[in-house]
Amino acid sequence: MVDKRRVRKAISLSAYPLIREFLGELAGTFVLVLCIIGTQAQAVLTNGRLAEFLANRMGEGFGVMAGVWIAGGVSGAHLNPALSFALACTGKLQWRKLPVYWIAQYLGAFAAAACVFAVYLEAIFYRTGGQFVMTDEDPGFAAIFAPYPSDYLSMTGAIVDSIVGSALLLICASAIVDQRNCKVPVSLLAFYMGFAVMGLGISFSMNCGVPINPARDFSPRLFTYLVGWGQQVFSYNNWMWFWIPLVIPHFGALLGAFIYIVFIDAHWPA
Amino acid sequence: MVDKRRVRKAISLSAYPLIREFLGELAGTFVLVLCIIGTQAQAVLTNGRLAEFLANRMGEGFGVMAGVWIAGGVSGAHLNPALSFALACTGKLQWRKLPVYWIAQYLGAFAAAACVFAVYLEAIFYRTGGQFVMTDEDPGFAAIFAPYPSDYLSMTGAIVDSIVGSALLLICASAIVDQRNCKVPVSLLAFYMGFAVMGLGISFSMNCGVPINPARDFSPRLFTYLVGWGQQVFSYNNWMWFWIPLVIPHFGALLGAFIYIVFIDAHWPA
Amino acid sequence: MVDKRRVRKAISLSAYPLIREFLGELAGTFVLVLCIIGTQAQAVLTNGRLAEFLANRMGEGFGVMAGVWIAGGVSGAHLNPALSFALACTGKLQWRKLPVYWIAQYLGAFAAAACVFAVYLEAIFYRTGGQFVMTDEDPGFAAIFAPYPSDYLSMTGAIVDSIVGSALLLICASAIVDQRNCKVPVSLLAFYMGFAVMGLGISFSMNCGVPINPARDFSPRLFTYLVGWGQQVFSYNNWMWFWIPLVIPHFGALLGAFIYIVFIDAHWPA
Amino acid sequence: MVDKRRVRKAISLSAYPLIREFLGELAGTFVLVLCIIGTQAQAVLTNGRLAEFLANRMGEGFGVMAGVWIAGGVSGAHLNPALSFALACTGKLQWRKLPVYWIAQYLGAFAAAACVFAVYLEAIFYRTGGQFVMTDEDPGFAAIFAPYPSDYLSMTGAIVDSIVGSALLLICASAIVDQRNCKVPVSLLAFYMGFAVMGLGISFSMNCGVPINPARDFSPRLFTYLVGWGQQVFSYNNWMWFWIPLVIPHFGALLGAFIYIVFIDAHWPA
Repeated sequence: MVDKRRVRKAISLSAYPLIREFLGELAGTFVLVLCIIGTQAQAVLTNGRLAEFLANRMGEGFGVMAGVWIAGGVSGAHLNPALSFALACTGKLQWRKLPVYWIAQYLGAFAAAACVFAVYLEAIFYRTGGQFVMTDEDPGFAAIFAPYPSDYLSMTGAIVDSIVGSALLLICASAIVDQRNCKVPVSLLAFYMGFAVMGLGISFSMNCGVPINPARDFSPRLFTYLVGWGQQVFSYNNWMWFWIPLVIPHFGALLGAFIYIVFIDAHWPA
Repeated sequence: MVDKRRVRKAISLSAYPLIREFLGELAGTFVLVLCIIGTQAQAVLTNGRLAEFLANRMGEGFGVMAGVWIAGGVSGAHLNPALSFALACTGKLQWRKLPVYWIAQYLGAFAAAACVFAVYLEAIFYRTGGQFVMTDEDPGFAAIFAPYPSDYLSMTGAIVDSIVGSALLLICASAIVDQRNCKVPVSLLAFYMGFAVMGLGISFSMNCGVPINPARDFSPRLFTYLVGWGQQVFSYNNWMWFWIPLVIPHFGALLGAFIYIVFIDAHWPA
Repeated sequence: MVDKRRVRKAISLSAYPLIREFLGELAGTFVLVLCIIGTQAQAVLTNGRLAEFLANRMGEGFGVMAGVWIAGGVSGAHLNPALSFALACTGKLQWRKLPVYWIAQYLGAFAAAACVFAVYLEAIFYRTGGQFVMTDEDPGFAAIFAPYPSDYLSMTGAIVDSIVGSALLLICASAIVDQRNCKVPVSLLAFYMGFAVMGLGISFSMNCGVPINPARDFSPRLFTYLVGWGQQVFSYNNWMWFWIPLVIPHFGALLGAFIYIVFIDAHWPA
Repeated sequence: MVDKRRVRKAISLSAYPLIREFLGELAGTFVLVLCIIGTQAQAVLTNGRLAEFLANRMGEGFGVMAGVWIAGGVSGAHLNPALSFALACTGKLQWRKLPVYWIAQYLGAFAAAACVFAVYLEAIFYRTGGQFVMTDEDPGFAAIFAPYPSDYLSMTGAIVDSIVGSALLLICASAIVDQRNCKVPVSLLAFYMGFAVMGLGISFSMNCGVPINPARDFSPRLFTYLVGWGQQVFSYNNWMWFWIPLVIPHFGALLGAFIYIVFIDAHWPA
């Protein structure tokens, strides 16, 4: 019925590797964000009954695993604009590819938000009565799609948190893929990257929900704006929040990649 | 005492590979469903005390792992009629084998339901007093054997949920076994497929309990009907529910296999 | 300071492989039971606060992992008299080795019970006030060391539970080590066996705490008798309970090994 | 932008392997302790809401995984002064390297404590109102950084606990890296060591929080003293507590290494 070769011919553009990588990043980020937001939806809509804290974190980890299964052999499964940026800065990704990766990642994340919205449409209407509102005290069901900072957190605090989190992500990712270090085969990449994101979620999610992936954050946030939660989704808590998870992770990721080079990578014997 | 060669001779039919695969799918699905329903029994009978949400999901994941350990080298461990169907459509399973796989899967799942019923017989009688009843508000202990939709869910919502869930399963499964992607060795197949089903249960179980495996759903549901829970098991919530997890996953699985081909598989360099 | 070769010479008996295997099974079962009872101690002594249901199950799984790390390359890490018995019956363990394995397993489990008692001595005295009592309604802190059946469970129910559980263990174990099936390398054996025991604990622990390992059950139970919990530890709930986890797993394990041969192992192409 | 070769040249000292190992242990222990204390911070600051018991243990396990990813191929990822000491005693680490490893480990752990303090600064001030106090009944928020013994625990009890825990750690670690045992590849080292520490946390954390790593314990404890929690951090519960996790693990680790040699390592056929 479905003939691979025929499909391949139909999309003959795929001869260009960049298109292959675009599609890989698109599909990988789609599934990554689909699982992350799906988990979040269960947790928020049932007040944590159908996804306790740890389950929520494991759902995120699973999202990463699935994304890496899909895109790992195609593009290396960045699935994260900040990670792609850091790899471009350290010469592991050609600069001309960066915008293509970015578009794929933001598109995939947006599609995932829409898909979760479709799956949990009735549950969301059932709980909200169709009123999509959020206040400064409580993001309400908008928290399904994108995280918001804790009450006590200042902008500086959020920036520090975001830098530490994304630096840590890059340190782990650099170590895992460094074949002179633990010789991790590509088949374990999904497992380890999934565990890394789960671990970060356990250790550093309290302040503002681990702002380490701009695509996972911004696209769904834009989606909540478009379906009617209003401008609050950008400026929660009386300060412009949305730009922190959108911009800061790039610096954090670069810092992390740099730290790994300074402490480990630069010292391997030739 | 037990001599393998003698047993092998006694069942000389096993020379035919299809009989081997039939037995593999039968045993694999039996253990898969045994563990899934066993976990569910603990959770329902103790109101979640002896299996919180995450434990329940990990029990399901373990069921998949065990099933793949058993049937992985024999038949590829489909353990799911919808998955077998999608593989047949994409040319990875001969059509003539499909009914054999299906029979094995439904039989194995039915036997598993009966076995869990035997193990938890006294607990079920202790909790129900021998009255097997369910209402439209509460499936009661029938929920041990097969899932029921949430109150708010319409038939359309259930169909969307089932399609997204089973498409996601097939995307993950296709990626995991694609040797040009992450080169996952067969020894890790059980772990990854188990994690995939656990992850799906964390992200997409709220609406109607992840309807992605017709055998896991229908055979135990039929069993509850036969032991006396009545026709309610089929038409819960005033609409015909049972056919959705029985039929829809086939379309979702096919869609998922197709998506993987379009986004990834069709683009590998020759 | 510590010179391996000198130690090796001192214990020159170790030239005999059986002594090596004896020590491996002893150390492996010791660590296995140490972790299982240690977890159980935390759970019981804190009423589940410092080890929820799932944590408790993962602690058991970890015990198995540790045991296999230690004895996996030495003796194959049976760590379970019933498993050794089933392997002897199917020709995978020489009969003359069986008693040696058994002695090592029961000794290791007893030493582990004593060690946990030492570690949690003050906590146990703090909670019990030094009164080691149990009633038919509540095993109290004796439940740290060995499991007791639920109120509703009859002797027949316990026998069924024990047979299903230990059969399942052997089906999984046989599948995992069968190199014609999923080709699991010995380095993953610990992970998979640990996950198997964790999964069994999630699915089938409600009736009477997964009675699948006579050494893990009997030796600590004997220990509770010796330190003063009285004969109740054997005959809980007005019926002779202790012999079920001591005897029945042998039959269940044999059944499981047989099922695996009949459904899978006997059918591999020559 | 960031050129590895230029960095390498700039730090030409790295030609000396010991400097490489120093940096590896430093970075590895930094990340290890960062994740462990980060998890602990979430758990303590939210009274367990954002990290239940098991999540907390998995966060610790993840810390170990991350540390091993980073330092595994460089120094073998000891990340623990007691472990380094035991390896020196058994001839697996040159004695002249030991102080270098120790300095790296204590420095890394101290930096991690400072980093977690920075990330959770606002949360800690929000909860404490800037008053860093602890009493003998309750370590309060000082428990974020270093563990304290339970009320019922005597000094002897703490010593026993610490010896058993660190012996167990070394038994597991020795078994995992012994290539004649389960042949664990270096790529699985991180996973297994992470699971080992998670398992120890599940089984033996009730008395005094698994005192097995002097660097993870002492450096953050010193940090709490320096930022103002006072001398209480050393002498909690009316007895000098701090020296036990600082000193005893060395003996426990040596005991564990010795046990592994006596029971397993000394008996491999030549």
